Amino acid sequence: MQVYEAPLRDMRFVLEELWHDDGFGDIPALKEFDSDLMNAVLEQAAKFSQEVLLPLNRSGDEEGCHHENGVVRTPAGFKEAYDQFTQDGWAALSSDPEWGGQGLPERLSKLVEEMTCSTNLSFGMYPGLTHGGVGAIAKHATDDLKNTYLPKMVSGEWSGTMCLTEPHCGTDLGLLRTRAVPAGDGTYKVSGSKIFISAGEHDLTDNIIHLVLARLPDAPEGVKGISLFVVPKYIPKDDGTPGPSNGVSCPAIEHKMGIKASATCQMLFEESTGWLVGEPNKGMAAMFTMMNNARLGVGIQGLGIGEAAYQSAVWYAKDRVQGRSLAGPKYPDQAADPIIVHPDVRRMLMTMRANNEGCRALGAWVARALDAEKHADDPEVRKRAEDFVALMTPIVKALFTDLGHENANLAIQIYGGHGYIRESGVEQYARDARIAMLYEGTNGIQALDLVGRKLGAHMGRYLKSFFHPVSDFIEANKGEGPMKPMIDGLEKAFGALQLSTATIAQKGMADPGEAGAAATEYLRLFGLVAMGYCFARSTLISGMKLAFGAEDKAFYNAKIKTATFYFERILPQVSAHFLAIKAGKKSMMALADDAF
Amino acid sequence: MQVYEAPLRDMRFVLEELWHDDGFGDIPALKEFDSDLMNAVLEQAAKFSQEVLLPLNRSGDEEGCHHENGVVRTPAGFKEAYDQFTQDGWAALSSDPEWGGQGLPERLSKLVEEMTCSTNLSFGMYPGLTHGGVGAIAKHATDDLKNTYLPKMVSGEWSGTMCLTEPHCGTDLGLLRTRAVPAGDGTYKVSGSKIFISAGEHDLTDNIIHLVLARLPDAPEGVKGISLFVVPKYIPKDDGTPGPSNGVSCPAIEHKMGIKASATCQMLFEESTGWLVGEPNKGMAAMFTMMNNARLGVGIQGLGIGEAAYQSAVWYAKDRVQGRSLAGPKYPDQAADPIIVHPDVRRMLMTMRANNEGCRALGAWVARALDAEKHADDPEVRKRAEDFVALMTPIVKALFTDLGHENANLAIQIYGGHGYIRESGVEQYARDARIAMLYEGTNGIQALDLVGRKLGAHMGRYLKSFFHPVSDFIEANKGEGPMKPMIDGLEKAFGALQLSTATIAQKGMADPGEAGAAATEYLRLFGLVAMGYCFARSTLISGMKLAFGAEDKAFYNAKIKTATFYFERILPQVSAHFLAIKAGKKSMMALADDAF
Repeated sequence: MQVYEAPLRDMRFVLEELWHDDGFGDIPALKEFDSDLMNAVLEQAAKFSQEVLLPLNRSGDEEGCHHENGVVRTPAGFKEAYDQFTQDGWAALSSDPEWGGQGLPERLSKLVEEMTCSTNLSFGMYPGLTHGGVGAIAKHATDDLKNTYLPKMVSGEWSGTMCLTEPHCGTDLGLLRTRAVPAGDGTYKVSGSKIFISAGEHDLTDNIIHLVLARLPDAPEGVKGISLFVVPKYIPKDDGTPGPSNGVSCPAIEHKMGIKASATCQMLFEESTGWLVGEPNKGMAAMFTMMNNARLGVGIQGLGIGEAAYQSAVWYAKDRVQGRSLAGPKYPDQAADPIIVHPDVRRMLMTMRANNEGCRALGAWVARALDAEKHADDPEVRKRAEDFVALMTPIVKALFTDLGHENANLAIQIYGGHGYIRESGVEQYARDARIAMLYEGTNGIQALDLVGRKLGAHMGRYLKSFFHPVSDFIEANKGEGPMKPMIDGLEKAFGALQLSTATIAQKGMADPGEAGAAATEYLRLFGLVAMGYCFARSTLISGMKLAFGAEDKAFYNAKIKTATFYFERILPQVSAHFLAIKAGKKSMMALADDAF
Repeated sequence: MQVYEAPLRDMRFVLEELWHDDGFGDIPALKEFDSDLMNAVLEQAAKFSQEVLLPLNRSGDEEGCHHENGVVRTPAGFKEAYDQFTQDGWAALSSDPEWGGQGLPERLSKLVEEMTCSTNLSFGMYPGLTHGGVGAIAKHATDDLKNTYLPKMVSGEWSGTMCLTEPHCGTDLGLLRTRAVPAGDGTYKVSGSKIFISAGEHDLTDNIIHLVLARLPDAPEGVKGISLFVVPKYIPKDDGTPGPSNGVSCPAIEHKMGIKASATCQMLFEESTGWLVGEPNKGMAAMFTMMNNARLGVGIQGLGIGEAAYQSAVWYAKDRVQGRSLAGPKYPDQAADPIIVHPDVRRMLMTMRANNEGCRALGAWVARALDAEKHADDPEVRKRAEDFVALMTPIVKALFTDLGHENANLAIQIYGGHGYIRESGVEQYARDARIAMLYEGTNGIQALDLVGRKLGAHMGRYLKSFFHPVSDFIEANKGEGPMKPMIDGLEKAFGALQLSTATIAQKGMADPGEAGAAATEYLRLFGLVAMGYCFARSTLISGMKLAFGAEDKAFYNAKIKTATFYFERILPQVSAHFLAIKAGKKSMMALADDAF
């Protein structure tokens, strides 16, 4: 059964306790968002997610989206939920107040996003895509375009899309063929086919604003000849309301493994009027503004599903009675013990729990860096925060989505045969979670981004934003004491990360294929160390809270137990990844293409 | 795209080259199955799978089974395919000639099963379940029952089911409630509800023979009070044709994540006439006859899907052009290189390949033991073969199905966003493969079976059937030479397995919870070592073949390269599992039930 209660206590922990000395300092610009305000937002968001979004999750999956004569209908209840979502102001949460947004800190809005993804990933796609469009327009478009589109997109009255992929090109956008021809009046005629366009067409909003990558007639080949355009479904009239159709159509929607309530559209642009965003042929840069933000968002999707899967599994593990504890009956008044008594079920629950808490803590750190990047007074701090976000973005995207999918599969496993039945709701989590490892750049592409672009950038400067705090923490907490096994474990794992980094830097310099061959294992190793750091910090803080008589003992004790499980049972995976990285590319590349 | 060509070369390798000195000796009773005959069977099976079953795989998934007024219809084409399957004699392949079977060796029929599972897992369920029923009847039923049912079930004219699970009991069959009351004429009236009954109702055969677990009125509580009954859908008339209805109905079928063309039925027995199979209250023993065979079969399902996923991924990796090789363009005449040039795609393909070849080799070894168990002249050999099968059954079931699911997910990953679209066919593999980790005992239950029943049995006698050949092999091949890295790697991994075994034996003696906490990691570690042994053996044999001028150089070279990849990139996972096992149960069990 799909059950969900927002993990507010843990959210408050990562929001207010864990990262109080995150290295980015106080941010005066965000002072107004005090503890009370943030708590109120979290509680309202929890209520909305639990009461409005969760009940539409299974029904949306069963019904899916409908496509008839080019019109796309979302499943029953989605339109009403979306109206309430915008009326309550959720769409505008993190956007700039200049355009009607509420300007909430990222550290807060990312937690709200997590709740949305836990309760209805498909629903979250509609406002999620709009955010990407808002970001690109706000950063790169003319004031005219901003004034026309941003207020309506920020409020959620209109939605947005990112039109990148074409049938023959996804990762390699250099191959794209959609054309944009100057119309002579400052606008362009955009023509071409796009696929996999989330929220490309639907019935939730009056207008849909497409951000489209296309080539100008004189554009250079490859990625250096791509420009970005705003192409609305309906051209806005002078009064701001949707006007004439703009030659944008949706010939079909895809039939997918999951997120069935999210309309994944084939889009056709036929001489559609478009407005250039940013400079000609610099579309990739503008696109990356959307993309990096989207990648963090996709990471949060993984965490969101991972949390929902965990809670649904806990519910079942307590409800389902089957067999007896190996230590003798624990619930002798029942015909059998609930399966939560069995060690192997515990192993799965604790793994899921650790995955979620580790990702949530790490995600919160990155979200604080996003705030610092935007709002910190000190340009030095802004720079460091930017480095950190750049470094961690591919890790958050790939690690969180891998673990979200792992959690969903563990939930199925805990349900046994019942987990395979659609009615149980958990198989939906596995199907929904699967997309997050693929879109916004597959997780393999994230790993390449990490080793190819992030490691070497500015002579390894990005790395310092992570390595320094971790090694400072280890130095400060080393030595005898109750945390010794944990700090030793972290130090060892961190050592493996440093050695792997050096190996890749060295070998990869001479042969980029070596970096490529190490990429996926390295990203996971990095992620495991980062989660280990989060857990060690969490343990230290929880221990201090307990020592100083905090009231919420159960929470801090559980945190330490989960951290201990992580260190004993999950972090050791570092050893296997390290050995695999050390092995290099030879055996991977030995077989000729045609021998497969 | 779902593509498949039976891997006949590798099948012949594991059938005739790899295990020539498997320790079970020659089996004179199987002499007639010479190389030519076995090749002919493999080639015909390949043809049938590729030409008849594969084309129905996607359409069967899209259409699913239909349930109307208690009648179940399989998807279009299934009835015709099933008729051809039985007419061509595939149903009777491995059954006893006494009942009309062809008595093929298991080593051969398991390879045919693999092909069926690669091309249409749902289809394979129908004859697969019949086999389980045939086994139980042949071993435990009266001659009358055998004569009535076996010829028709062996030919495939009638099909069979295993009716174990009830809504409130799956793993813990002690809780079951279906009753069987003596009718006074030697038969019983069976009443109760069963769920998750594969092939419980369908339109492929004239009669369906249910093997039903139920309780006699005076039965002791728990698993010691369960008996097994034959309950036909239609009671056979004296002339052997189906007679009157027997109160067996199918009120509904399940809507599942995958294997949608396999009818998973709720079954209702209302005073249905049943015949006792074996002794009263000894139903669990008879049931395990079906179950153990079924567990090996489910393992083969994992391998089958794993192979299909691999081939479909290879096809795509060669077809899809995107980006350029990190070493510079490899196919400069194309707009981009096929993605098979990218190391991270290679990593996935090589992993899938190694998973398949490792499982196929190990499965072939176990299949030889099945033959030896049944047919060897020497009772000592039969005993040792039985030990080996008992030990390896949970490993084959859990390891193969985990890796099959991993392969299916890697295939999706290689397809990128396209893999998420149903049309691509690979997401079906992930959905279909998922069930194999759940049914016939979840993989967690397999792990408990291994550490709880198999390790300690007869003072560790089962273990010797694996440990002795592996340590003999290491001793025989140690020292300087080209195989040194591999043998060293195997020795180290084998050492970790021995240490883990000792740890579990020691700790588990004092506290069964410790064995339970180690079970899943131990099973995987065991499986990794077993695959390592298979690959080291394969390398040795391939090396010798090459040295002595074998013609098929490409095959042997590829085998050695895949083995090398396995040793460098996969076997190191042993280290992580070893550390996790060493950590024990404490952190796993630390959190109170209500703290979750």
